[in-house]
Amino acid sequence: MKAVGVVVEYNPFHNGHFYHISQSKSKSNADVVIAVMSGHFLQRGEPALVDKWHRTKMALQNGVDIVIELPYAFCTGHATFFAEGSIQLLEAVGCANFAFGSEEGSIDPFINTFTLLKTNEERYNALIKQYVTTGISYPQSLYKAYEELRQKEINQTIDLSKPNNILGYHYIEAAKRLNLRIEPMTIPRIQAGFHDDINSDSTIASATGIRKAIFEGQSLQEIEQFVPNESFKLLEDWHKQYNTFMHWETFWPYLRFAILRNTPEQLTRFADVSEGIEFALIKAAKKSSSFSQFMNLIKSKRYTWTRLQRMVTHIFTGITKEQLHNSANPSYIRLLGMTKNGQAYLSQHKKQFQLPLISRVASTKDPMLLLDIRATEMFALGVELSSGRQIALDYQTPPIRL
Amino acid sequence: MKAVGVVVEYNPFHNGHFYHISQSKSKSNADVVIAVMSGHFLQRGEPALVDKWHRTKMALQNGVDIVIELPYAFCTGHATFFAEGSIQLLEAVGCANFAFGSEEGSIDPFINTFTLLKTNEERYNALIKQYVTTGISYPQSLYKAYEELRQKEINQTIDLSKPNNILGYHYIEAAKRLNLRIEPMTIPRIQAGFHDDINSDSTIASATGIRKAIFEGQSLQEIEQFVPNESFKLLEDWHKQYNTFMHWETFWPYLRFAILRNTPEQLTRFADVSEGIEFALIKAAKKSSSFSQFMNLIKSKRYTWTRLQRMVTHIFTGITKEQLHNSANPSYIRLLGMTKNGQAYLSQHKKQFQLPLISRVASTKDPMLLLDIRATEMFALGVELSSGRQIALDYQTPPIRL
Repeated sequence: MKAVGVVVEYNPFHNGHFYHISQSKSKSNADVVIAVMSGHFLQRGEPALVDKWHRTKMALQNGVDIVIELPYAFCTGHATFFAEGSIQLLEAVGCANFAFGSEEGSIDPFINTFTLLKTNEERYNALIKQYVTTGISYPQSLYKAYEELRQKEINQTIDLSKPNNILGYHYIEAAKRLNLRIEPMTIPRIQAGFHDDINSDSTIASATGIRKAIFEGQSLQEIEQFVPNESFKLLEDWHKQYNTFMHWETFWPYLRFAILRNTPEQLTRFADVSEGIEFALIKAAKKSSSFSQFMNLIKSKRYTWTRLQRMVTHIFTGITKEQLHNSANPSYIRLLGMTKNGQAYLSQHKKQFQLPLISRVASTKDPMLLLDIRATEMFALGVELSSGRQIALDYQTPPIRL
Repeated sequence: MKAVGVVVEYNPFHNGHFYHISQSKSKSNADVVIAVMSGHFLQRGEPALVDKWHRTKMALQNGVDIVIELPYAFCTGHATFFAEGSIQLLEAVGCANFAFGSEEGSIDPFINTFTLLKTNEERYNALIKQYVTTGISYPQSLYKAYEELRQKEINQTIDLSKPNNILGYHYIEAAKRLNLRIEPMTIPRIQAGFHDDINSDSTIASATGIRKAIFEGQSLQEIEQFVPNESFKLLEDWHKQYNTFMHWETFWPYLRFAILRNTPEQLTRFADVSEGIEFALIKAAKKSSSFSQFMNLIKSKRYTWTRLQRMVTHIFTGITKEQLHNSANPSYIRLLGMTKNGQAYLSQHKKQFQLPLISRVASTKDPMLLLDIRATEMFALGVELSSGRQIALDYQTPPIRL
């Protein structure tokens, strides 16, 4: 059986995801779609709206055959690390292809961009340095250096100001750097921009737009048209049971407690906290009665919103630099769920998998898996704090079968 | 002006305290009463019912002239350390006497006991060892060894099975060991035993009995007869504003979060956590939805309830072994409140004080004072979690003047 891989967060699963899965499957002539999905904390440094079991169900109901978990160590990392972990896992489960959505829409310009930057590495780095010294921010300097190189290039290259192109480039780069056999493909994104608000004339909206509508809108019905029926039903069920969707505001009392329980020096034990930001974090936490107030106090030119959110994710989960850096490459394939079709694929191929397949989390000493379990426990405490109700924990939950 | 010192928690202030203060003052012919009072966490390893500002007011309204804070490092320590810190502070503010309540009621038997144990130190230690090897617990072995020595003593000694006698003995021992000039006195406790339930025929009840009635009773009125009017009014005010009195159950969600955010190894960073109890703490916290459930899972022959509660106090406040052990002797006199009479005493005597008098907590680097400030912040977060309302913090609060 042939498999195509996708890298996803499904926060929440929407019609655009459905489109991406069906396109990926048909264009790659695959028999099964395997999704590597972030657990309870996402790449932007945020808790997921609903737990990973609900998001796994959404995926399996809409075309994904196998969901495996992207370990915490990768799903809360910067894009390079996130991409490396994801692509390695897709290779490890034997995917022939991986398919990512992009604004660009065809794969050659990605490869051309990789070749351009690789063959001009020295010049590229010199240009970046030059821009940085003029006082431009590092991401802006990267972009300007790239644009300068790109002007003289005959082959078509990608526009690296587009967020999905950037992420796609990281996948390509990871696959090339790690010499993986898995073949990249890209599917053009349709209609909705990455950060666009929802638009009632369409059935496609970005996950960011949908989340915004969920938290700012009057009722859940506002997003119904943008998500498959089964996903909407699962979101409704979650809301009935837990009374809210999860975001930093619901976790704020715990996050604040976790920050203020430390001296500035102790705070630097946690992953990504350094360079003096610890003083600002404590000062802001003292003054703030909400997460948004807190973020507005700590944001600055130097730190992107995402970087700050990843920092506080690690403080919230209590994961230290030492713990996070124990983790280099994925050491297991954690199965969150499968369809019958997915099960057939696993039976046929699992002996060739490059990493152990974990269906049940019994007592483990794998430091990377312990982080995933911790992340679930902390997410669960946050849910319990705001709703008084419990979610499924890793030890208790076998893979979802559909 | 002559001062007598008392060591107190006032959790809450009751008629027995009022009696103790008036007796201490008249028997010592003092002009002022100075109380060294625990802050927000108490010697039994519990949060106080109400904040230290309310308890300071209760004291000043009922015969105490000056309230100074017993630093966190001492007020959450075992009896030896608690006594050393308290007595040193009373000496530092120039008290001629200190007066403690005891079941015994006269001072000579305390002195005799000290002399007996000091002159028979070797024999005493040998006896303790002997009892321990028979399998009897350490506190029981201490008691049996003492009883054996005591049989052959002609002078009257104290009964060390009584809780206030034990505490009193620690004061005497601390004062002698540290060669302090301050002179000990004892006031007999009246009527209520230490752990007795309240009794509606009396106006005296123990603080333990009063707390029990507060949490288990139907209404606050049940304790009205046991506390001075002004104290009752302050308790009522607190309850109106914060909707509950503080105890571990109100802080439980934070405590649980603080425990589960650590690996067993990381948990041993916190003061008093060692010897493998960290595994039991995590296991029990996972299973428990209340503090009492948690305590019932971790209690054992090896650990007294108090010792376990002190452990979790340090986990709750986030105070590590390293931080607590930075603190040996009191390094400041923190003034929480004073009457006019107390103010007159301070004006007259503060130049002779052996330690700096701190009226306002500005930015400080004193590691001992930073622990007090942390303890207040963590207590405040606990109050906010259960009531949604804020209490006064150290930085904002000048001494209370009455």
